[in-house]
Amino acid sequence: MSTKPKVALVMGSDSDYEKLIPCIKMLKKFEIEPVVRVISAHRTPDEAERFAKNAKAEGIEVILAAAGKAAHLGGVLAAFTTLPVIGIPIKSSTMDGLDSLLSMVQMPKGIPVATVAIDGADNAAILAAQILALKYENIASMLDEFKKQMADEVMTKNERIMLEAQAL
Amino acid sequence: MSTKPKVALVMGSDSDYEKLIPCIKMLKKFEIEPVVRVISAHRTPDEAERFAKNAKAEGIEVILAAAGKAAHLGGVLAAFTTLPVIGIPIKSSTMDGLDSLLSMVQMPKGIPVATVAIDGADNAAILAAQILALKYENIASMLDEFKKQMADEVMTKNERIMLEAQAL
Amino acid sequence: MSTKPKVALVMGSDSDYEKLIPCIKMLKKFEIEPVVRVISAHRTPDEAERFAKNAKAEGIEVILAAAGKAAHLGGVLAAFTTLPVIGIPIKSSTMDGLDSLLSMVQMPKGIPVATVAIDGADNAAILAAQILALKYENIASMLDEFKKQMADEVMTKNERIMLEAQAL
Amino acid sequence: MSTKPKVALVMGSDSDYEKLIPCIKMLKKFEIEPVVRVISAHRTPDEAERFAKNAKAEGIEVILAAAGKAAHLGGVLAAFTTLPVIGIPIKSSTMDGLDSLLSMVQMPKGIPVATVAIDGADNAAILAAQILALKYENIASMLDEFKKQMADEVMTKNERIMLEAQAL
Amino acid sequence: MSTKPKVALVMGSDSDYEKLIPCIKMLKKFEIEPVVRVISAHRTPDEAERFAKNAKAEGIEVILAAAGKAAHLGGVLAAFTTLPVIGIPIKSSTMDGLDSLLSMVQMPKGIPVATVAIDGADNAAILAAQILALKYENIASMLDEFKKQMADEVMTKNERIMLEAQAL
Amino acid sequence: MSTKPKVALVMGSDSDYEKLIPCIKMLKKFEIEPVVRVISAHRTPDEAERFAKNAKAEGIEVILAAAGKAAHLGGVLAAFTTLPVIGIPIKSSTMDGLDSLLSMVQMPKGIPVATVAIDGADNAAILAAQILALKYENIASMLDEFKKQMADEVMTKNERIMLEAQAL
Amino acid sequence: MSTKPKVALVMGSDSDYEKLIPCIKMLKKFEIEPVVRVISAHRTPDEAERFAKNAKAEGIEVILAAAGKAAHLGGVLAAFTTLPVIGIPIKSSTMDGLDSLLSMVQMPKGIPVATVAIDGADNAAILAAQILALKYENIASMLDEFKKQMADEVMTKNERIMLEAQAL
Amino acid sequence: MSTKPKVALVMGSDSDYEKLIPCIKMLKKFEIEPVVRVISAHRTPDEAERFAKNAKAEGIEVILAAAGKAAHLGGVLAAFTTLPVIGIPIKSSTMDGLDSLLSMVQMPKGIPVATVAIDGADNAAILAAQILALKYENIASMLDEFKKQMADEVMTKNERIMLEAQAL
Repeated sequence: MSTKPKVALVMGSDSDYEKLIPCIKMLKKFEIEPVVRVISAHRTPDEAERFAKNAKAEGIEVILAAAGKAAHLGGVLAAFTTLPVIGIPIKSSTMDGLDSLLSMVQMPKGIPVATVAIDGADNAAILAAQILALKYENIASMLDEFKKQMADEVMTKNERIMLEAQAL
Repeated sequence: MSTKPKVALVMGSDSDYEKLIPCIKMLKKFEIEPVVRVISAHRTPDEAERFAKNAKAEGIEVILAAAGKAAHLGGVLAAFTTLPVIGIPIKSSTMDGLDSLLSMVQMPKGIPVATVAIDGADNAAILAAQILALKYENIASMLDEFKKQMADEVMTKNERIMLEAQAL
Repeated sequence: MSTKPKVALVMGSDSDYEKLIPCIKMLKKFEIEPVVRVISAHRTPDEAERFAKNAKAEGIEVILAAAGKAAHLGGVLAAFTTLPVIGIPIKSSTMDGLDSLLSMVQMPKGIPVATVAIDGADNAAILAAQILALKYENIASMLDEFKKQMADEVMTKNERIMLEAQAL
Repeated sequence: MSTKPKVALVMGSDSDYEKLIPCIKMLKKFEIEPVVRVISAHRTPDEAERFAKNAKAEGIEVILAAAGKAAHLGGVLAAFTTLPVIGIPIKSSTMDGLDSLLSMVQMPKGIPVATVAIDGADNAAILAAQILALKYENIASMLDEFKKQMADEVMTKNERIMLEAQAL
Repeated sequence: MSTKPKVALVMGSDSDYEKLIPCIKMLKKFEIEPVVRVISAHRTPDEAERFAKNAKAEGIEVILAAAGKAAHLGGVLAAFTTLPVIGIPIKSSTMDGLDSLLSMVQMPKGIPVATVAIDGADNAAILAAQILALKYENIASMLDEFKKQMADEVMTKNERIMLEAQAL
Repeated sequence: MSTKPKVALVMGSDSDYEKLIPCIKMLKKFEIEPVVRVISAHRTPDEAERFAKNAKAEGIEVILAAAGKAAHLGGVLAAFTTLPVIGIPIKSSTMDGLDSLLSMVQMPKGIPVATVAIDGADNAAILAAQILALKYENIASMLDEFKKQMADEVMTKNERIMLEAQAL
Repeated sequence: MSTKPKVALVMGSDSDYEKLIPCIKMLKKFEIEPVVRVISAHRTPDEAERFAKNAKAEGIEVILAAAGKAAHLGGVLAAFTTLPVIGIPIKSSTMDGLDSLLSMVQMPKGIPVATVAIDGADNAAILAAQILALKYENIASMLDEFKKQMADEVMTKNERIMLEAQAL
Repeated sequence: MSTKPKVALVMGSDSDYEKLIPCIKMLKKFEIEPVVRVISAHRTPDEAERFAKNAKAEGIEVILAAAGKAAHLGGVLAAFTTLPVIGIPIKSSTMDGLDSLLSMVQMPKGIPVATVAIDGADNAAILAAQILALKYENIASMLDEFKKQMADEVMTKNERIMLEAQAL
């Protein structure tokens, strides 16, 4: 039985799965157990309710909700739980993601959804890790290390581009 | 006991009520009984579910859903019923109504919300009347009459403006 | 001779036809007879008027209007009939569908067009079925069944994605 | 009986009249006879058709069409005539005029509407004058004079602002 | 020596040429002589001024201006002439054409640019023909014929799609 | 000395203070100590850095960042800490808040900002409470109670509006 | 005779003057001589050309161009000079400034306009000062001082708001 | 050791490098030494601060900042220097560059970023050259020549297109 902290990743459609793989991998990288589900706010509303109401009892601490178009999933889950809900707006074939973004972020008073960038799957995982790091010291340490690695990677790229630019 | 056909008008917040009065009056004009409710998709999700699941059994034939910002109400109600749901996007203090419009109209495959113009409360009532007119001959007659009256009103305004313009 | 209920699907251009095939199939799935036409609000306005004025007499109960860019078709048909008109905004090569959406949904008082999502052809058919289900019990039953199947499909996809995610 | 060239100004609603007074005055300034009408594309479609079909025979040479929201008026009139149609998008209470602009300007191939700025009533009149100036030498002369006057007015304002700025 | 009426088509960049070929062909179809130029409002402003100031004297009756991004070309030409200027906003690699459209259509009072749809090259030519038809009877006749042909083509497509739809 | 959990509320300008009072009150309601600061990402960047780097050591667990226009504050703070940063886009006099929203939410990979609705000050506080509730049982209880109260308030409003609507 | 460096501030309309007073004052604060003009790109194009062509010879080193709607002024001036041109998009009554912004910033290759925020009059002056500071040491010193003062003002406001917030 | 004037080109991600090559080449064309760096405002904020604070001392006179999405880089660098900062908004996979543009250009009072078109890398270099031309006579001469060449190129293209159009 897993003793890792759990974060749910709920997607509104299996067609969003490819875009969410970096999110799942990022959660695992921070030693968080991802609980991955396909639940449609509109096609399986009873399941959405059941999942959100039971999430806390099942040990889930943060819920990530990814959806496109009129992306109600985050709001629907947040309606049934007091766990933090992070929304990932997914860009679909029209409106360039603006519809999903506004449908997620413009939540009315009382029921926030913490929204990240359109198609920002990895950032949703990092945000979940930042939240859990308030409780789990090991995640806090990993985040510090992650931040250093990101800086190092940029510095390395900087070296390479400086050379490439000089050679132009 | 009423024997008129029933149309529900559900608003996400009582602050939208003023904008919806023309809708209620328009329904009454077509001899439809309005069933008016304040139900928040996010603050009273259980009530939203209960209402939508029972609407058909309670004799409601069409549901109008008015909401602003991330306007999930139409979609949430539509998830629990096969009755036609008409969405009325309400303009709030930011985004000029674009957020409500996109949150309502961009519904995913399988669960449509028939969306009218931003703040288009009266048109939602007329659309409901058009739907009911397929069953209720008296409403069909009233719609024909209403269409003629609208044309007459425009013609009358035309006469007045023609005179005003000549006097410029 | 058909005794099925009839729904018209009018498209503004034959170039929209491919996107509308799912709509036609969906209508047939609900045992509705689709009356498919290419009528341009701007190039064949007389035909648009003739069609809309006669639609009710020809047994049509709902009109679906699909058009792109300055998508006047829904409004033009609605001007000549009191049948419910459902608008399908079609995305064309510029503006990502926003022009069609606003041209359809922002109808003035008195003449509503029930608008669905950009390129939302199947939802227009489902909405028509929901409207007809108020009169035709068999369609109501099929809609209930359809809703259950959609939920089942999501549940099946959920099973698959849960496995795929664990294997990452 | 007037022997001046005629330009029609058709508005979709009498509520747009105030915004259009500068247009009417500008037409008169160029010795053009304004033929002012309130005709709704959606509420009086038969009148719109009748007016557009007869406009040429009645001596009208250009049609100005002013409308808000889903502003179909220009397109509907253009569908029934080969006279040049100039569209004036009117800003209404939501969407800041973007809906009217896109509904007017994004016309499909074959039926252009010459669109001016949102609430650009005077420019529509000037554009009509520019078109008529191809035939009527007196209008061409007045346009030349108008252009000089505009420049002079700017030069005068320049003098005033230069002084005001120095006094800051 | 040509005795046909002349319409100038000025493009801001030769990269827009491909999109404008339908415009040139359409002008020729209406027996109008196209005067095609590449003139940049920003890179060759003196040439833009020279061209616009001389256009009338050279027998040009309408100027079409096609440009992308911050599409000033129409306005710059209109500043130097009282001939009608028709703007064709060209979609480039960012902003989906919205920048060109707004840069063209939102002209200040006094200097209108008659704007057509984004990438609406053929409609600009038709609009020019409609303007010239006020003077040239042969163009008026051709426009009537063109309108009939467009309607016929739609009717033919309607026949085909009706059959295809039945075969689904 | 306070033993309550601490949440920082950093605003980019004191002109945003009025809009943020509901946020401060909401934090206090959940027995969270608000640490309120005016820090400009652009005018006091050293202070922004200092504050963000020290926040964790000073016992702050969540940072709320409110800013308008090019709202970099959230991102700038997030760059220097691994604490969760919640962004509150503030609507200013142009662009209706869209600039602030996009500047906050569209963060690049690695540095998320959890964005709430434009002017969504109270929701930012609630989101902070939801995050802290993972650690502090008393906040979790208060959130459950808060959710019930919100539902009760909607139900009360529902009663009132039902009566008002009947009296129309 | 002034020996201060000169910066031109050209506005497209005297109606923009009020919004530009902070710009003029800011230039004077940095001991720059403002050369203020009302020149319309469209109504006084010859004057725009003359001014831009002579600006360098008259000792002007930077040109600020403020305009609304289809804001061509910056581009038109930049076409006739190699001096740096800074664009100030002015918000007018429709489109919330988006039209001016896009018309200014989206300049084609070869002719840049350095654009600041919508209604960003003071920032245009500061940017001009930053450019001149490369040559004029006294302006560089004043900018350093200005930056310190801005920081001090924020720190002072921070103190005040901290107290106000505690008193809530 | 180089005695050329220096301009920094800082990009937020090495993935933007390809789009910036024209900028580097353009700088070299004007005999400006490009100082190219990859610095992320969010991943390497300390390096951003260090670079901006030292830029002037290292002889850099203008800083170009290229970034996508929530493009804070320009603002973050500008916060630490009084050198002119030119922002290049980079279009990424969603929002068509609008997010980057607004994040760059809508800077608050006191800290301007001179913004060019989305993906306008070459114009940023030309703008830097225009700024440096105030001090360096050779760059001023090259800009004059460059402007002439641009005009010549357009004239050449004009000749070619005139011929191609006649041959249609």
